[in-house]
Amino acid sequence: MEPAKAGHRIALDCMGGDMGPSEAVAAAALALKEGLVGPDDRITLVGNEEVLRLLAREHKFRPGGRVDIHHAPGIVLPDDTPMGVLKGKKDASMVVALELLREGKVDAVVSTGNTKVLVGAGTIRLRTMEGAERPALAAIMPRRQGHFVLLDVGANPEATPEHLVHNAIMGRVYAQSALGIAEPRVGLLTVGTEEGKGGARINRTHAALKAVGDRIRYVGPVEGFDVFGDVCDVVVTDGFTGNIIIKTLEGLVFMVRDMVGPKVRYNPVYLAGGIAMFPLLRELKGHLKPERYGGAPLLGLNGIVMKAHGSSNRHGIASAIRLGREALEAGAGRRMREELAAANAVMATLPPA
Amino acid sequence: MEPAKAGHRIALDCMGGDMGPSEAVAAAALALKEGLVGPDDRITLVGNEEVLRLLAREHKFRPGGRVDIHHAPGIVLPDDTPMGVLKGKKDASMVVALELLREGKVDAVVSTGNTKVLVGAGTIRLRTMEGAERPALAAIMPRRQGHFVLLDVGANPEATPEHLVHNAIMGRVYAQSALGIAEPRVGLLTVGTEEGKGGARINRTHAALKAVGDRIRYVGPVEGFDVFGDVCDVVVTDGFTGNIIIKTLEGLVFMVRDMVGPKVRYNPVYLAGGIAMFPLLRELKGHLKPERYGGAPLLGLNGIVMKAHGSSNRHGIASAIRLGREALEAGAGRRMREELAAANAVMATLPPA
Repeated sequence: MEPAKAGHRIALDCMGGDMGPSEAVAAAALALKEGLVGPDDRITLVGNEEVLRLLAREHKFRPGGRVDIHHAPGIVLPDDTPMGVLKGKKDASMVVALELLREGKVDAVVSTGNTKVLVGAGTIRLRTMEGAERPALAAIMPRRQGHFVLLDVGANPEATPEHLVHNAIMGRVYAQSALGIAEPRVGLLTVGTEEGKGGARINRTHAALKAVGDRIRYVGPVEGFDVFGDVCDVVVTDGFTGNIIIKTLEGLVFMVRDMVGPKVRYNPVYLAGGIAMFPLLRELKGHLKPERYGGAPLLGLNGIVMKAHGSSNRHGIASAIRLGREALEAGAGRRMREELAAANAVMATLPPA
Repeated sequence: MEPAKAGHRIALDCMGGDMGPSEAVAAAALALKEGLVGPDDRITLVGNEEVLRLLAREHKFRPGGRVDIHHAPGIVLPDDTPMGVLKGKKDASMVVALELLREGKVDAVVSTGNTKVLVGAGTIRLRTMEGAERPALAAIMPRRQGHFVLLDVGANPEATPEHLVHNAIMGRVYAQSALGIAEPRVGLLTVGTEEGKGGARINRTHAALKAVGDRIRYVGPVEGFDVFGDVCDVVVTDGFTGNIIIKTLEGLVFMVRDMVGPKVRYNPVYLAGGIAMFPLLRELKGHLKPERYGGAPLLGLNGIVMKAHGSSNRHGIASAIRLGREALEAGAGRRMREELAAANAVMATLPPA
């Protein structure tokens, strides 16, 4: 049991999103109003104090209430690099938010900013948690019934078998808090489900996952076709493959939208169904977009870091706040460290590659 | 210039498809009727002679005409392995067809059979062409305007930078014959388009592709999101990533179909548009399915081998026959060997990893 706390403290990087700080502050208001955070939780808005003070007044946040402001005048831009930001932009809202987390002044960070900088700067400043070597970005994806966790979707493109086992463990703990599945099933993404396919790295990962399988409910290798079915709840892959998957799927969804749009307008056969079709497409898009759950956590660091899509509106950002809060409430960090330690102990007994 | 020939000879493995030999023989008839092969080309049906003779009679193929029969009583099954088939099923139609190609009795093989066995047995029996170390399966994929070639979609999951450069060269020659693009643009699939992202293997491949870039119109790294746009005509990746991409995309398309179907039936709002929507979905499915072009060549072997999807109907199989015939007509094999030799000469001058 974790000791009872006075509530969770969440820092919201308000300056990184495409829609600007007003949408971030509106998301904080929404999270409070809709009870996405608990009555004892606090949200710290990080960014330009003058701007945030005006926005806070609009939303009638009381001074000394559940929302406070932490000044950070700098902004991380799309072309910035992690090292460039850590050296030259120490006052950027993202860096300051990460620093608050490192110093233990908050328990989680939510950011809509530059993914590459968040992964790089977050890893350098917070360091990986005991038992993990690399962080992993975990996306929640739709399937026929419900959702599944896909990780890594871009933090660590060159994952070793050990990293992949760590991804399995962290993804499973995250699926418990984010999807509410008590015993999520874990699958290893590969190109053929018979043993011996997919190459040496996959074989070694498969052997290690089997060895720790009792603790993680490992169901074995899964193929690309399986992920949308009901085969497993956590799909483990490296950050190269995972990133290409989510971008290719998103590309397909946008292509279909572009293909259907003009057809509905110009083809009289389709025009008849146009009115009925558009709400359906909107619904499909909502169902298919990886951002539906509003945030992808950067797992494996000392502290909870949630990445929300750069184009997120207040609902997307509020959803990332909720996911971060749920991970804190579930003690996800502590549970990941325990499970990583147990898995590493098992892996240490395996024969070397 | 290649010497003028008496026509191309194509062996059709008739026993491997889900729809059986009758569909394969019907595909041969269709290819002849629709002029997908030239007037001097010949098709050899490979499979159970008794069955094929009955089917040939149905289609009124004349003895001594453009279609002949080669007896092969064995059948490759879904669970077979390449080594198992080469040792224990030498009389299988797929193996016999590959043997005809190896002996120079035909110029190309078209098969709907087990992909894993076709890749493995094809590679062992035919060997890779001079200049290539591994084969690659090339799929034709839809994009907003037209199509692009994606390779490798599953033959070689552990591709080295050299293999990826070879894929670029072979994919480009194939795009010329299959898509009719005179100077196809080549992109390298990765997770970020700035140099230095994607890991050591991608960086080394990028450097090698730049070095041979003049010969292959290399446009640089591309992301998963770009492939459906008009960025390049050949997308190069390893057989692990490529296989997962096509299976994930296919999984998404089937999921959308399953999601839309019941909605159209049960939701009165969508029901209104149901009649108009179904033809659209059919069209989208035809546009999105990788099998639209009916065949994926196994590039890099001594001889043209076309894999058609196991579920192909006569149109899909006939389309694979056409693609194989076009590759022969374009002298694709010879052109690949020339371009591979030139690229290997450039790569030999690069500093070692």
